[in-house]
Amino acid sequence: MSHAGEPVQFDIVGIGNAIVDVLSPAEEAFINAHGLVKGSMTLIDEVVADAMYAQMGPAVEVSGGSCANTIAAAAALGSRVAYIGKVADDQLGEIFRHDLSSAGVHFDTPPSTDGPSTARCLVLVTPDAQRTMATYLGACVELGPEDIDIELVAAASFVYLEGYLWDQPRAKQALRDAMTTAHRAGRKVAMTLSDPFCVARHRAEFRELVAGPIDILFANQLEAESLMEVTEVWDVVERLQGQCELVIVTRGDQGSLVVTPDAVYEVGPVHVPEVIDSTGAGDLFAAGFLYGLAQGWDLVPCARAGAAAAAEVISHFGARPERDLGELVRIAIGEEI
Amino acid sequence: MSHAGEPVQFDIVGIGNAIVDVLSPAEEAFINAHGLVKGSMTLIDEVVADAMYAQMGPAVEVSGGSCANTIAAAAALGSRVAYIGKVADDQLGEIFRHDLSSAGVHFDTPPSTDGPSTARCLVLVTPDAQRTMATYLGACVELGPEDIDIELVAAASFVYLEGYLWDQPRAKQALRDAMTTAHRAGRKVAMTLSDPFCVARHRAEFRELVAGPIDILFANQLEAESLMEVTEVWDVVERLQGQCELVIVTRGDQGSLVVTPDAVYEVGPVHVPEVIDSTGAGDLFAAGFLYGLAQGWDLVPCARAGAAAAAEVISHFGARPERDLGELVRIAIGEEI
Repeated sequence: MSHAGEPVQFDIVGIGNAIVDVLSPAEEAFINAHGLVKGSMTLIDEVVADAMYAQMGPAVEVSGGSCANTIAAAAALGSRVAYIGKVADDQLGEIFRHDLSSAGVHFDTPPSTDGPSTARCLVLVTPDAQRTMATYLGACVELGPEDIDIELVAAASFVYLEGYLWDQPRAKQALRDAMTTAHRAGRKVAMTLSDPFCVARHRAEFRELVAGPIDILFANQLEAESLMEVTEVWDVVERLQGQCELVIVTRGDQGSLVVTPDAVYEVGPVHVPEVIDSTGAGDLFAAGFLYGLAQGWDLVPCARAGAAAAAEVISHFGARPERDLGELVRIAIGEEI
Repeated sequence: MSHAGEPVQFDIVGIGNAIVDVLSPAEEAFINAHGLVKGSMTLIDEVVADAMYAQMGPAVEVSGGSCANTIAAAAALGSRVAYIGKVADDQLGEIFRHDLSSAGVHFDTPPSTDGPSTARCLVLVTPDAQRTMATYLGACVELGPEDIDIELVAAASFVYLEGYLWDQPRAKQALRDAMTTAHRAGRKVAMTLSDPFCVARHRAEFRELVAGPIDILFANQLEAESLMEVTEVWDVVERLQGQCELVIVTRGDQGSLVVTPDAVYEVGPVHVPEVIDSTGAGDLFAAGFLYGLAQGWDLVPCARAGAAAAAEVISHFGARPERDLGELVRIAIGEEI
């Protein structure tokens, strides 16, 4: 069955782990004592999650999930967006659903009614504003091919996937189905590599995806270097160039590189007076970039929009925007479009 | 049974409504459309709470409750503190318990195992950084005299009560018991008037308390003016002076007035570059002040400590401190102690 030629109803549909973030400041010693890897995400089971939470300081709860952050921010910018992800029918699941829906995101994946509770990500923010994450996937492991709304995926210009989903066999199959559906409908597949350790866990498959179904790849420098097993960003560029229509490598306060088969654009960052919490920087970058793409912008303004959205989110605690992203993006792109 | 002369184990024991705050930016129109009074707290039932939440934007969940905010902040400053309040045995109740316990607060009031869910306060923050609150009291209405741990109250230098508890008949009896216990043990009773509308609901009783069992009264200017039915702060001072050992009137960016039977001290505010969210300003002021009192400080440094703690909390979203309060207080009191 082909959907090619059917009308586009959404700019972006995201598929990801539906997670509530539990953010707390922490010292380096806490990170080390729990065997976490600073700046990265470690998967933990419920027993470890409960024990770690009991030892954490007071926290703030904010709906999170890498892809959901991107989708919520794209909605804030004005994109027409939808989300597919799995929560349980508990208080945290209601909070997650509320926060996405009220951001203007179409989200109707049914909650699981038994089994594990809604996923939590314990986000430990060290004084250097780095975030170290320990994720209990909970209800996310219930996401499967039956949750992929084929009509929805076919109706969106871009399907945006998070690499983290590769940690679960059923979700992996769901993503493969979604990619096939998107391409049959003439849509683009975008994906983020999510985390250097996630890349290490799935390097062979991720390389296959990059050479195959992925049209637009988002990665930060560490993730991209891990993917290609090199230690220099220009080696990454050389090896990835041409494998996808677009490769975007984000580089923190050094801005980003936008790589097409024919060109490489170096785009500067957007200045932030003080970095409070880097949680969500990559997620928001992807939001700004995809928003620009869906608007038909050139690549450099897309990357500037990404940088502006990322700058907003790292200037406060939490991974969802608090200020008017649209205005910040307009300022950042200035006269460029 | 008298506890007078028994050793002090805590500096402060707080009794209040155990509430999880659900914070969201909102426009004035939303406040008006829902019949809320800007800057104040309105009590709502579960049906209204659910309907209002459905229409609210994306939110952040933070443990709150006026008195619990004070107690958590006092713990952060180094006071030995305990809390008495009622949550349900649900996910939000666990979050509330975690956040207080991990802040170093002794908290062992048993959760309710049936009946309403843990209380939520929908906090709508308008662009002028004012907070308007709609509270569903949920499990808080289960708090009763049986929850007052007599030994605990008798073991603390100060018992700190929130005026909001006066909205519930059983909690009111619990507070009267706590005041009697505290005085029999030779301790001091401190109370906050909480909210101008709360004062209006209970003016006669609050006046009686001020003239009677309350030793230390915290009120912002509006609350104090409402209590005495005058419209000028110096009239408030004149009428309240001598009724309690100490009356502290907070005045936002005008600082505070500390009123003893013999003197009035005007104490300046602590400067904040940008007020982001005024939620918790009064709560944190009380924390800094009581911390200072428990340390045996003079009144002016106590008020400066309160101002420093308040300044921290209004410079970000949410009513619990994110930075090192102790250091901010040390800077604010400078050479004064």
